[in-house]
Amino acid sequence: MNANDPALRSFVPVPPESHFPIQNLPFGIFSRTPQGPRRVGVAIGEFVLDLSVLAEKKLFPGQALSADFFARQENLNEFLSLGRNAWREIRSAVSQLLRHDAAALRDSIALREEAMIPRASVTMHLPARIGDYTDFYSSKEHATNVGIMLRGPDHALMPNWLHVPIAYHGRASSIVVSGTDVRRPLGQTKAEDAVAPVFGPSRNLDFELELGFLVGSGNSLGAPIPIAEAPEHIFGFVLVNDWSARDIQKWEYQPLGPFLAKNFATSISPWVVTLDALELFRVAGQKQEPEPLPYLHLPGDWALAVQLEIHLQTEMMPGRQRISATNARFLYWNVCQQLAHHASNGCNLQPGDLLASGTISGPTPDSYGSMLELAWKGTKPITLANGETRAFLQDGDRVTMTGWCQGPGYRVGFGELTGRILPAL
Amino acid sequence: MNANDPALRSFVPVPPESHFPIQNLPFGIFSRTPQGPRRVGVAIGEFVLDLSVLAEKKLFPGQALSADFFARQENLNEFLSLGRNAWREIRSAVSQLLRHDAAALRDSIALREEAMIPRASVTMHLPARIGDYTDFYSSKEHATNVGIMLRGPDHALMPNWLHVPIAYHGRASSIVVSGTDVRRPLGQTKAEDAVAPVFGPSRNLDFELELGFLVGSGNSLGAPIPIAEAPEHIFGFVLVNDWSARDIQKWEYQPLGPFLAKNFATSISPWVVTLDALELFRVAGQKQEPEPLPYLHLPGDWALAVQLEIHLQTEMMPGRQRISATNARFLYWNVCQQLAHHASNGCNLQPGDLLASGTISGPTPDSYGSMLELAWKGTKPITLANGETRAFLQDGDRVTMTGWCQGPGYRVGFGELTGRILPAL
Repeated sequence: MNANDPALRSFVPVPPESHFPIQNLPFGIFSRTPQGPRRVGVAIGEFVLDLSVLAEKKLFPGQALSADFFARQENLNEFLSLGRNAWREIRSAVSQLLRHDAAALRDSIALREEAMIPRASVTMHLPARIGDYTDFYSSKEHATNVGIMLRGPDHALMPNWLHVPIAYHGRASSIVVSGTDVRRPLGQTKAEDAVAPVFGPSRNLDFELELGFLVGSGNSLGAPIPIAEAPEHIFGFVLVNDWSARDIQKWEYQPLGPFLAKNFATSISPWVVTLDALELFRVAGQKQEPEPLPYLHLPGDWALAVQLEIHLQTEMMPGRQRISATNARFLYWNVCQQLAHHASNGCNLQPGDLLASGTISGPTPDSYGSMLELAWKGTKPITLANGETRAFLQDGDRVTMTGWCQGPGYRVGFGELTGRILPAL
Repeated sequence: MNANDPALRSFVPVPPESHFPIQNLPFGIFSRTPQGPRRVGVAIGEFVLDLSVLAEKKLFPGQALSADFFARQENLNEFLSLGRNAWREIRSAVSQLLRHDAAALRDSIALREEAMIPRASVTMHLPARIGDYTDFYSSKEHATNVGIMLRGPDHALMPNWLHVPIAYHGRASSIVVSGTDVRRPLGQTKAEDAVAPVFGPSRNLDFELELGFLVGSGNSLGAPIPIAEAPEHIFGFVLVNDWSARDIQKWEYQPLGPFLAKNFATSISPWVVTLDALELFRVAGQKQEPEPLPYLHLPGDWALAVQLEIHLQTEMMPGRQRISATNARFLYWNVCQQLAHHASNGCNLQPGDLLASGTISGPTPDSYGSMLELAWKGTKPITLANGETRAFLQDGDRVTMTGWCQGPGYRVGFGELTGRILPAL
């Protein structure tokens, strides 16, 4: 039985709205105590399955890698470097162990207690040592919205946008895992009518909802990856919040692109949902017109039907409120095109590199992926249910993103990505 | 006696034009065979001093770090993280050992043969694991030249340039050490009069002469580095060649900056010249008008009087020919301003991060730091001594950069940074 089969059931109880049924089995790095040793885990329902315990008990078939491989892994990088066969074999082995009709784990209370830890009790860490982080700009709606605000509707989309999957290099060191608070940055800004810039706390702090993927096996410097081979290099996906200081960005970004406006923090969700787990949720993408150059041409459906939501909770609210709902299928450039473009000049991608989509905005105003667009550059502040308004983020605001693919009776989900704004120093 | 004292002499013979007298003592990573174990070395004259051998013999005083510290270092990162006191102590200890009147190493043939290896026989490697690479744009002459070519003389310099030390994130994975050949990249380009882009080998391949520095001790995310403390975080300097595909860059760079035009390769020289070794060569920088904001204000002289040269050798030439001579003192934004600006928003810098200056161009056409400027966007091709001309680089061309500070009777130098263009795949 295929690990994605909708009919699969686990002996672990998983309600239909859970993000982590047996059809998902995302990988992450956890520790049992905040400072404790880091281990590779797989999420199932309300539990983390500790792969190091399974490895010690020799419960893996061990075809693609040694049976004790996971006993010594503190991040996913080495696993990522092994390639798709190894990823599939391990996910399949975990799936077998967790099935409702598999006795090895199900019927051993001692083994279950050792190998399965409540998710609520563990600390999650960055899933990989991220060597390089690249952020694309793959939503036509987002690029158009930003273009309209900056240049007006007649020249909204740059001439290169429909030909080139535009991207820039982000900062790897400031990528943090969900739950990490984010300090409001200081920086240079200049008001339109001011003669000189000032230095102080950003006043236009924003989020950007993105989907990112971790590179699995990489390529050598100078050796491009043909797009037909791109899927072999894509391990799995996380939610990405590319925090942005719009006022700093506006003043600094010409001519070399965003820098301090973005590199103070980028948050990612801890569970990596494999490309394999998303196989049933691949759908046709946006029509690409003009047709991309041959190096970007790949038959098949490569958009991902991931429902995405953004929630905001201010300090005065008892709970969070949804402020946007969109879908990753709206992206114009797909992940294979992103990866093949990135390596097309010979740039070497490495296991654990993060490639993010850029802000995902849908066609309607309630499906935009940034506050910049939702409040249209501050001109249409959002009114929240308690009467508060927001044009940009205030101190104490918590932004939570979530996403899932809806299967028949189950969800293959990403869990949550959350972060709260701390006041500037 | 101070390790920078011009009167210092070593028992190792060092001719006056050598880049590696006892006043320099740059750090690097070498191996005795191409695939052999990597060790920390210090360059002295025609030799590499193997610090792991000195560590095993307990020849370091071992105040700031354990006597056997260098026995187990395969890159400089851990050393960099220790901070300035440790760097100074080790450089001072090495200086003491190499003095003409110090017997320990001088009078032991066995120890010399074990610890000192001819530089010509070793393989040099990247000095550090570079987590993040940032490229600035700190030469006013370069920014002005590029601006004139793109936008004409009236709006050459962007309005932000005199206020913001402009920078962008580069690609860390494709940084290679001197001597590595560079494959001509493929990419999208679009001629001015073409209706659509094409994909193929770059035809406008260029070099950029830069000076970069490795971050020593870093800062925590969210905690800026005040500019007064910036020097404590700067370990040392290397030459940087930021290879660039101008035709790819022109088509892709709006609005998020250069990406594939730059990330196919960046070359650096292997020996890291410490900030301490450059102390006598700090000079007044360019006058900064308008005065920078307070977070960028630092008294003292922080420009570096490094003489820089670019040499070209085509496949038809028996030797190389100098095509540009410039000086790092022409840079407008200094290294302390670069570092303080980078961390001003709380971005966390880490040991081994590379911050590069951007192309260093002087005021005269023979002092420009890129082919783009030297041949003025292809309109004034360079004529070489053998009659060949160059507007951009051709396959087989070798670019060699070098740089040094001239002291009284000695040079504190960087050695060479060289790379050759291989044809596109």
